[in-house]
Amino acid sequence: MTPSELAEQLRNGALQPDVMSQNCPSRRILQHVTSRWGTLVLVALEPGTQRFSALRRRIGGISERMLAQTLQQLEQDGLVHRHAHDVVPPHVDYTLTPLGRDLAPRLLSLAIWIEDHLADLLDTASIADASADPNAASDAR
Amino acid sequence: MTPSELAEQLRNGALQPDVMSQNCPSRRILQHVTSRWGTLVLVALEPGTQRFSALRRRIGGISERMLAQTLQQLEQDGLVHRHAHDVVPPHVDYTLTPLGRDLAPRLLSLAIWIEDHLADLLDTASIADASADPNAASDAR
Repeated sequence: MTPSELAEQLRNGALQPDVMSQNCPSRRILQHVTSRWGTLVLVALEPGTQRFSALRRRIGGISERMLAQTLQQLEQDGLVHRHAHDVVPPHVDYTLTPLGRDLAPRLLSLAIWIEDHLADLLDTASIADASADPNAASDAR
Repeated sequence: MTPSELAEQLRNGALQPDVMSQNCPSRRILQHVTSRWGTLVLVALEPGTQRFSALRRRIGGISERMLAQTLQQLEQDGLVHRHAHDVVPPHVDYTLTPLGRDLAPRLLSLAIWIEDHLADLLDTASIADASADPNAASDAR
């Protein structure tokens, strides 16, 4: 089934989206926007249009290659718009699409929640580290 | 620095949390809760306590090993509580901690947003697939 046939079936109710279902395309989108770099790129674009180099500086630890791949994936998902300005030297920038602008604040809220609760989360982690349960200290993380 | 020393420095303002910073512990927590299975486990626990087997059935495609690892990681992060009931046969269940209960609705809202906008997202994807730009059809996704 093509993406547009799937969209049609979702609109007429023949298909129900369900991220818990392994083959639902919503699962794939969820994985893109919550990927290692996807979330941070969408959060970094939330304030507005950014050039590639500015995104690269903003997102600590991202490589040029991973940033390019992540932006391309989000562009294909319809969440980010790439604009190559017709100037010399070349100037390319990235903006959230209307769908991306609707989505990004949810990821920003998630990131802010984690920052705001980090001390509490670390306290719990330190309790877990110090607990008597040897399984709690394994390196599954 | 131990987790509790870090927590102290966050509380007295000597450190500022920042998910954009590669070494901030908030980045690690973000990656746990947005990991391939972390988000789905937290969303699946949002309605309430679940047994391992029920979680495994609910989350399409998760293996026993990945579910166990994901639950252990979320337990170490202080988001999930594991309760081994003292009965025969053994009965273990999982519940969100108060921190997890505060966080999970944010992930649920993200999942619901994707489900609700899936038809629009697929429409955009089909436009991208059909576009004349050969790069848009590469398999970076």
